[in-house]
Amino acid sequence: MTGLTLDDLPTPALVLDVAVLRRNVARMAAAIARHPGVALRPHMKTAKCAEVAALAAPGGGPITVSTLAEARHFAARGWRDQIYAVGVTPQKLDAVAQLGRGVKVITDDAETASAIAAHGAGIAALIEVDVGEGRGGLAPDDPALLEIARRLGPSLAGMLTHAGHSYAGRGEGEMRRIAEAERAGIAEAAGRLRGAGHAVGIVSLGSSPTALHAERLDGVTEVRAGVYMFGDLFQAQLGTHGEADIAVTVLTSVIGRRRGALLVDAGALALSKDRSTEAAPRDLGFGLALALDGAPLPGEPVVRRAYQEHGVIEGGNLDLPVGARLRIAPNHACLTAAAHERYAAVEGRGREVLAFWERANFW
Amino acid sequence: MTGLTLDDLPTPALVLDVAVLRRNVARMAAAIARHPGVALRPHMKTAKCAEVAALAAPGGGPITVSTLAEARHFAARGWRDQIYAVGVTPQKLDAVAQLGRGVKVITDDAETASAIAAHGAGIAALIEVDVGEGRGGLAPDDPALLEIARRLGPSLAGMLTHAGHSYAGRGEGEMRRIAEAERAGIAEAAGRLRGAGHAVGIVSLGSSPTALHAERLDGVTEVRAGVYMFGDLFQAQLGTHGEADIAVTVLTSVIGRRRGALLVDAGALALSKDRSTEAAPRDLGFGLALALDGAPLPGEPVVRRAYQEHGVIEGGNLDLPVGARLRIAPNHACLTAAAHERYAAVEGRGREVLAFWERANFW
Repeated sequence: MTGLTLDDLPTPALVLDVAVLRRNVARMAAAIARHPGVALRPHMKTAKCAEVAALAAPGGGPITVSTLAEARHFAARGWRDQIYAVGVTPQKLDAVAQLGRGVKVITDDAETASAIAAHGAGIAALIEVDVGEGRGGLAPDDPALLEIARRLGPSLAGMLTHAGHSYAGRGEGEMRRIAEAERAGIAEAAGRLRGAGHAVGIVSLGSSPTALHAERLDGVTEVRAGVYMFGDLFQAQLGTHGEADIAVTVLTSVIGRRRGALLVDAGALALSKDRSTEAAPRDLGFGLALALDGAPLPGEPVVRRAYQEHGVIEGGNLDLPVGARLRIAPNHACLTAAAHERYAAVEGRGREVLAFWERANFW
Repeated sequence: MTGLTLDDLPTPALVLDVAVLRRNVARMAAAIARHPGVALRPHMKTAKCAEVAALAAPGGGPITVSTLAEARHFAARGWRDQIYAVGVTPQKLDAVAQLGRGVKVITDDAETASAIAAHGAGIAALIEVDVGEGRGGLAPDDPALLEIARRLGPSLAGMLTHAGHSYAGRGEGEMRRIAEAERAGIAEAAGRLRGAGHAVGIVSLGSSPTALHAERLDGVTEVRAGVYMFGDLFQAQLGTHGEADIAVTVLTSVIGRRRGALLVDAGALALSKDRSTEAAPRDLGFGLALALDGAPLPGEPVVRRAYQEHGVIEGGNLDLPVGARLRIAPNHACLTAAAHERYAAVEGRGREVLAFWERANFW
């Protein structure tokens, strides 16, 4: 216990409801347990925090990271089995090697594959496959897959894909369809490599929506997902979880009152400028205002404008004095959490701050 | 000297061209010097860095800050005369008082004014006036101005406004008009208070565009501006400065190649999700790609998509290998800089990293 409550914290501040976090972690674990032999490799890019990893990937279990700063943070605290799931460059290999053999990299580039194989430290690598997102990775039938596998040689640890385009999906049927395309694509690519005589140990896929909606995962060894731990307003509108399952919020103070609006001290820096819900059924601006205990407020008050340090809440006819406190549920948990250096951990509707948990920000 | 060059830095990283910074600082100083008796109070919300303040507000000169973290950072390093220019709450007054008497607050709220006057530390306050932005502050003719001045009593240090709506202005004529409305509004409000017998010491206004375009500043004692130090793609399109006057960029590495596009390791976290140029004449996505030495590239390559750690550059037909380095000019310097913990200072087109300068992030 810190001896502090949500009334004492300087604002803005990032609040993490550990009861909701535990529930979200249990739900994903149950979803993956439907698929015997498939492991969950939680993506720590959203939380970037060892105390959260202790719940989501207990016992130093396998994790995914998005930066070398995360990789260092978690490696130093006992998480040895990591996939650094952003395409590596030859220049980053020395930093990876310093983290120990458990930290695996990904690539879709032949020259980089040669650099990995030539690196003295024996770095393990996965080949990135694109199943429709159109970001990184090679198509499952791209001939370059075999060339990269050949260049990697004994460094080849497996294959990886991410159906990030599931974020543009709507409804359970479409999510199931994208999940199956993700599975079929990576399984096809792994099959091609095996057919050419390569050992493919890890077959890794995932995004929070497809992880929850996948009906079958044959041919897959593990699933990656991250934002499910915290949830956010965008994922709630995708149907990944309910609005009551959002674990992170920004504590804010009223700093001004105008007709029909409140000015608060959570602006673009504290909330991020992410506008994920812009194209969603309900456009929730820069975030949804909640009561200090995290309960919904009537009339859907929303942060409609965000200046660097000012947010403007409209709707809900809130009549609150300067200094009153609210919480803001975020559009996109990954971006909002990254604006803060630590979490104030609370439990359910309680105001006591149980602990402060540090984040591994930056690179 | 750090002994490092831009080829050695881990990416993504924030780069600050000190030659451009000095030029921008000199240009604003010259613009304010056209108005005898008017002081420049640089806003440190963009830079959040003592080494930058040493250039922009030398000799511990007056500054503006947007957070208590900045106020602490600068107070500890000799900048005593500060205006904390975000509406204060009664709960924050103790933290302000700990920083010494030079740190002034702003308010537009009667109850908060009473709390300031009742605080034992003798905190000085300015009344916030709205000259058309519609964010914080009272209209120049609002009767509440006099009530707040009465409540502040000897705590009244002056009046302050910010024509933030200048960011929506286009062309020099419109900027001059907004600048004059800003001046006339705050002068009118100060006149009303003086007419009622109040001493109004500081009459403060400013935004980077209006500071540069103001034709007269009579009745004003000081001008605040911040983003001019760094500039950005949005300010360049407003005409505040040229595109060659952008002092901050994000160093990034190519991490993937696709037909017609490059994947780089500067995504939404390294660039921010600010889309300021969306409504500008040229929509520059999440930033404009430059050569490693900061020079423009042909064909206007732009970061069109930004994932958490991935940026997708389209345009310019760049044919670069994985590991090649570029720099990205930001849409909005305040938001992009806030994503990083420090600056790598360089000089002009030089690749040598002269120093690392720390930022006072968070709250």
